[in-house]
Amino acid sequence: MGWEHVRTDLLHEGPFLSLYRDKVIRPDGRPGTYEHVAVSDGVRVVAVDQSECVALVEDDFYLPQRRVLHLPGGGAGGQAPEEAALRELEEETGVVASELRALAVIDPLPATTTARTHLFLATGLRLGTMRRDDTEIGMTVQWRTLDWALAAVEDGRITEAGSVSALLLAERALRSTPGL
Amino acid sequence: MGWEHVRTDLLHEGPFLSLYRDKVIRPDGRPGTYEHVAVSDGVRVVAVDQSECVALVEDDFYLPQRRVLHLPGGGAGGQAPEEAALRELEEETGVVASELRALAVIDPLPATTTARTHLFLATGLRLGTMRRDDTEIGMTVQWRTLDWALAAVEDGRITEAGSVSALLLAERALRSTPGL
Repeated sequence: MGWEHVRTDLLHEGPFLSLYRDKVIRPDGRPGTYEHVAVSDGVRVVAVDQSECVALVEDDFYLPQRRVLHLPGGGAGGQAPEEAALRELEEETGVVASELRALAVIDPLPATTTARTHLFLATGLRLGTMRRDDTEIGMTVQWRTLDWALAAVEDGRITEAGSVSALLLAERALRSTPGL
Repeated sequence: MGWEHVRTDLLHEGPFLSLYRDKVIRPDGRPGTYEHVAVSDGVRVVAVDQSECVALVEDDFYLPQRRVLHLPGGGAGGQAPEEAALRELEEETGVVASELRALAVIDPLPATTTARTHLFLATGLRLGTMRRDDTEIGMTVQWRTLDWALAAVEDGRITEAGSVSALLLAERALRSTPGL
């Protein structure tokens, strides 16, 4: 059984976010409505150098009204996830990766949006060209040991879901394949 | 510097989701708009029994139009996160936990919503009373080893961000404090 889709109405179309209201038949057979939003898919990258340091970026987030520490990444903006990951990594940290390995694809809020976040492990790093967009002018980069970043996840300094998931998955991937 | 808030307008108020458009000053000093949504905070619980098995639930999700495997949990619905976690755990799996430990609080989509997901580790389990709501009539429970659940995270059978993060954090917590 499950949920049955009857009709979709667009309630609002904004530059980065659209809102829909669907008529549905609920799992208990009763008619209902289901509101949901469309936003861009996202990417997050754990870029690991030869001393097992990872790139973290910090910038100003509007909604929490504070600086947020997270992995390089952002909206895929219509690109393939792999391309978007390499582009965001270079734009935000100035490094280019020769190897990109998929860690996972997560659903940040699957009851609210179908947007997914693609998580990658990037290795084989060399210098490229930093190019930040206009809303990222306050962004700073930190290279930290993976252990530092994992401690930051555990003590609440890193909370963005894609960054949390990707760092924890990268630790498992690197532990099972040392020197990856 | 950062983003400056000027004014908030409510564009839509639905039963589970509200949409806002803010007038802002962007980090580059230019005026702009920022649209964001409000949804309930969430909770997810890793409930571990004495044989290191964890409770997983599977039910019908509307947006992906398929059954989704995830940790017990859901919307906090105005309750304190701890209360909501214990309530959802009992409603969905029929078990009551005597110990609840905070693992982390994550931000699923911090550029789109301020909603947070609270992650817990629950131990000291005993039988309680299952009570599902009307949209959860197709829900099933599975008790799986933690290793099974972690493999499911790594191979993409578990993708919901709170479940992914909580299972990976629980593994680290249990590894550092065996027999917790």
